[in-house]
Amino acid sequence: MKTERTAVQSLATATRIVMPNETNTLGNLMGGWLLNWMDINSAIAAHRHCRRVVVTASVNNVSFDRAIRLGDIVTIESKVSRSFTSSMEVFSDVWVEDHNTGEQIKSNESIYTFVAVDQNGGPIEVPTLVPETDLEKERFNGALRRRQLALILAGRMRPEEATELRDLFL
Amino acid sequence: MKTERTAVQSLATATRIVMPNETNTLGNLMGGWLLNWMDINSAIAAHRHCRRVVVTASVNNVSFDRAIRLGDIVTIESKVSRSFTSSMEVFSDVWVEDHNTGEQIKSNESIYTFVAVDQNGGPIEVPTLVPETDLEKERFNGALRRRQLALILAGRMRPEEATELRDLFL
Amino acid sequence: MKTERTAVQSLATATRIVMPNETNTLGNLMGGWLLNWMDINSAIAAHRHCRRVVVTASVNNVSFDRAIRLGDIVTIESKVSRSFTSSMEVFSDVWVEDHNTGEQIKSNESIYTFVAVDQNGGPIEVPTLVPETDLEKERFNGALRRRQLALILAGRMRPEEATELRDLFL
Amino acid sequence: MKTERTAVQSLATATRIVMPNETNTLGNLMGGWLLNWMDINSAIAAHRHCRRVVVTASVNNVSFDRAIRLGDIVTIESKVSRSFTSSMEVFSDVWVEDHNTGEQIKSNESIYTFVAVDQNGGPIEVPTLVPETDLEKERFNGALRRRQLALILAGRMRPEEATELRDLFL
Amino acid sequence: MKTERTAVQSLATATRIVMPNETNTLGNLMGGWLLNWMDINSAIAAHRHCRRVVVTASVNNVSFDRAIRLGDIVTIESKVSRSFTSSMEVFSDVWVEDHNTGEQIKSNESIYTFVAVDQNGGPIEVPTLVPETDLEKERFNGALRRRQLALILAGRMRPEEATELRDLFL
Amino acid sequence: MKTERTAVQSLATATRIVMPNETNTLGNLMGGWLLNWMDINSAIAAHRHCRRVVVTASVNNVSFDRAIRLGDIVTIESKVSRSFTSSMEVFSDVWVEDHNTGEQIKSNESIYTFVAVDQNGGPIEVPTLVPETDLEKERFNGALRRRQLALILAGRMRPEEATELRDLFL
Repeated sequence: MKTERTAVQSLATATRIVMPNETNTLGNLMGGWLLNWMDINSAIAAHRHCRRVVVTASVNNVSFDRAIRLGDIVTIESKVSRSFTSSMEVFSDVWVEDHNTGEQIKSNESIYTFVAVDQNGGPIEVPTLVPETDLEKERFNGALRRRQLALILAGRMRPEEATELRDLFL
Repeated sequence: MKTERTAVQSLATATRIVMPNETNTLGNLMGGWLLNWMDINSAIAAHRHCRRVVVTASVNNVSFDRAIRLGDIVTIESKVSRSFTSSMEVFSDVWVEDHNTGEQIKSNESIYTFVAVDQNGGPIEVPTLVPETDLEKERFNGALRRRQLALILAGRMRPEEATELRDLFL
Repeated sequence: MKTERTAVQSLATATRIVMPNETNTLGNLMGGWLLNWMDINSAIAAHRHCRRVVVTASVNNVSFDRAIRLGDIVTIESKVSRSFTSSMEVFSDVWVEDHNTGEQIKSNESIYTFVAVDQNGGPIEVPTLVPETDLEKERFNGALRRRQLALILAGRMRPEEATELRDLFL
Repeated sequence: MKTERTAVQSLATATRIVMPNETNTLGNLMGGWLLNWMDINSAIAAHRHCRRVVVTASVNNVSFDRAIRLGDIVTIESKVSRSFTSSMEVFSDVWVEDHNTGEQIKSNESIYTFVAVDQNGGPIEVPTLVPETDLEKERFNGALRRRQLALILAGRMRPEEATELRDLFL
Repeated sequence: MKTERTAVQSLATATRIVMPNETNTLGNLMGGWLLNWMDINSAIAAHRHCRRVVVTASVNNVSFDRAIRLGDIVTIESKVSRSFTSSMEVFSDVWVEDHNTGEQIKSNESIYTFVAVDQNGGPIEVPTLVPETDLEKERFNGALRRRQLALILAGRMRPEEATELRDLFL
Repeated sequence: MKTERTAVQSLATATRIVMPNETNTLGNLMGGWLLNWMDINSAIAAHRHCRRVVVTASVNNVSFDRAIRLGDIVTIESKVSRSFTSSMEVFSDVWVEDHNTGEQIKSNESIYTFVAVDQNGGPIEVPTLVPETDLEKERFNGALRRRQLALILAGRMRPEEATELRDLFL
């Protein structure tokens, strides 16, 4: 039987200050840098879940709803939301801190998928993720739907097989 | 009437060599760096389409199917696939070059969305994208479906309104 | 009366993976990079304590007792240990993670001092730090001794005035 | 008989946005960064000509006639202009894009020379370059003159042996 | 008998221009970058003293008394101040240049300690440092006091054994 | 009358360790990085000569005769060799240090030209360079010949006007 681990056991936290070289001509953080930081922090969460080398398999969805400014303090919190045979879906929540009040304002969410590999790059089995909080359970349940969607978009699953996803539309 | 521009008018090409600091302990390019490069190259394509400042709005889907090695030559080609009122969807194709034969091997695809903004960061209208080749037309048609999907996932559209997307499942 | 804030209210956490460019020819993290990361994370802690721009005033003591390897996951936790009129002493604890067990192994400690400044760079008053745990109290008490030592070393206090420090030797 | 390859078969294109860290206090791109980018892009062109590891042998001439600004889009196009036994001369043309019109304005030219090496760093033979367009032929013809000049400046050829070059002055 | 070397034989000089990415939102050099540069330059001085691989053992004291601006030219001069069995204390003096007059203004001092190691990371013996100038002698004499202080702070020496240091207070 | 300054008054020295990200797949320093460092150090020398903002005008000649390895200590010494109305030619000598003996081995030479500019980017007059040593005089004399050569290559001087240069061939 596979080992079980909770989401919080995989939690990785990174805090950064936005530096000049990471901004565009409007003085805002460029999306590409945040994508890079979320990739690294998500990889640490995936590694903490399985204790193996992990490689990025896909970025499922990231939206940038709010400009982040030069000098802003950015906090990224990443946790595994669900594991499959050898892959792990990781959610990251990104917060920007109000300089005066210290209030943490939600800025972004991202969903990355990682695969655990051995030294030859072959996939290996990872522990089962056990969600605990309501949010963790909601993300755990959505993961199957997102996975079916990814397989359809990649042409590796027929829409009529995507039972979880079909329910959304019927 | 809005200006029209072809996809090829927005083409941006970037060629890079994978440097040591961009690799993981297996000697492979880390996904986060490629995400950063694709963001910049896609932004150039979006800028060439509309000639305005553009900001990353979302990353819709990226998959990493093939390891890219230290020292590999990577070519990224980005073109706008469809424009909406003030947003543009950009496809990037990533190729890795065989060192001995020079053969270009397809390594990744990505879909980013950008918004054109004025100096206050407010959205402004962009030209209409006119697809020409078969591939450009296929990506143009898929863009509407992806947009509906993004709106549903973000909770800004109800599934029963996503007519394009529903057709996939019915 | 000055505002009071606890140490934990200033806590800043940064998690990083050691990248190739940060290592020496033995494959170990160079001290200068860790000094840079601890400076940034300590500055975030100082900023969270006072909500003002802070600048590094001094590095009081850092020791490097254990080699950190390429690819290691490093966690830095920084908290304000004591505040004076406009300066704040910040302790950082650095942990390296065992790749197989996930055990956090203490690697370094550092003590940095920051000053809160206004827009002209002039010093401004900061809240009082209230220690809660035993370790926080121990560091709070030691801070006065370290401050006297720094003033003596800088030639701004005579040894006979350093009452806290003299007790150590008498 | 040596293999023959055309100039266009070696074409390498790089597009970049000038980032804050690459500018001086006037907000202009520093020459040293452009030298670095032209070196990498020229090396890719040389590699595409010979399919071997190449190392920079010399920079023959670069002039900076026009300031390039923060945020500008820079396109570098490099092609081999002539090959000798184991060395290749590479021309790069640098263009800056007008943000409003998209017009490509010529900004720089550079001439770098590379040598193809085996795994011990010893020189190895490269294919013959066959120029096709008028510009390629002009650069091909000038290469011999530049090579003689370089050999004289390095003290490895006597001026009276530099027949091509003498013609310029007689 | 151990080899002897003078302080000036270990002199390392680095000159840098402060770049945008190294500044905070006030446009001043961030302390963490200077700490990084002083670490590298001090390591070169320590390497020149012993001709072995050296690793940073501690930063004893650094103070930042004067803001350094974007575009400023910074000169760091590092020399070994004293050697012990396998460790070397290195002083660095940092100067900022007045743009108009060229005057070198003293900005910082730092004291780092390095250990010479063999290929397994084990400590190895280093030459004796022979001070020549008055300043070199003063720093040489102070080194013993600083070393006792470091050992006390690390809990590896009892205050009553620190004879050099006790003299300061009695 | 113009101010006069000696070559040594403009001397700038930079010492660096070759880091992983600056090497190619053979573990050697890539030429483009050395070009970048020589540009910065030459700019400091030119600035020290005229105390004004300087911009790179051209790279006249650089050759790379010897591979520089990862971890090598590189020293760059730059001095103004001759000044014209508003431009300055700067020679840099690059040395690599033998790890065991400390011997400084000459690795490269480069010749860069800079122009002093005012805040609008317009050229301004610079002091006269007065060479003192034999090598400085030799480089001072050669500068006129190189300048004529550059003007001819740029099509701004006719070969028959290049009296200094013609003497080489006649």
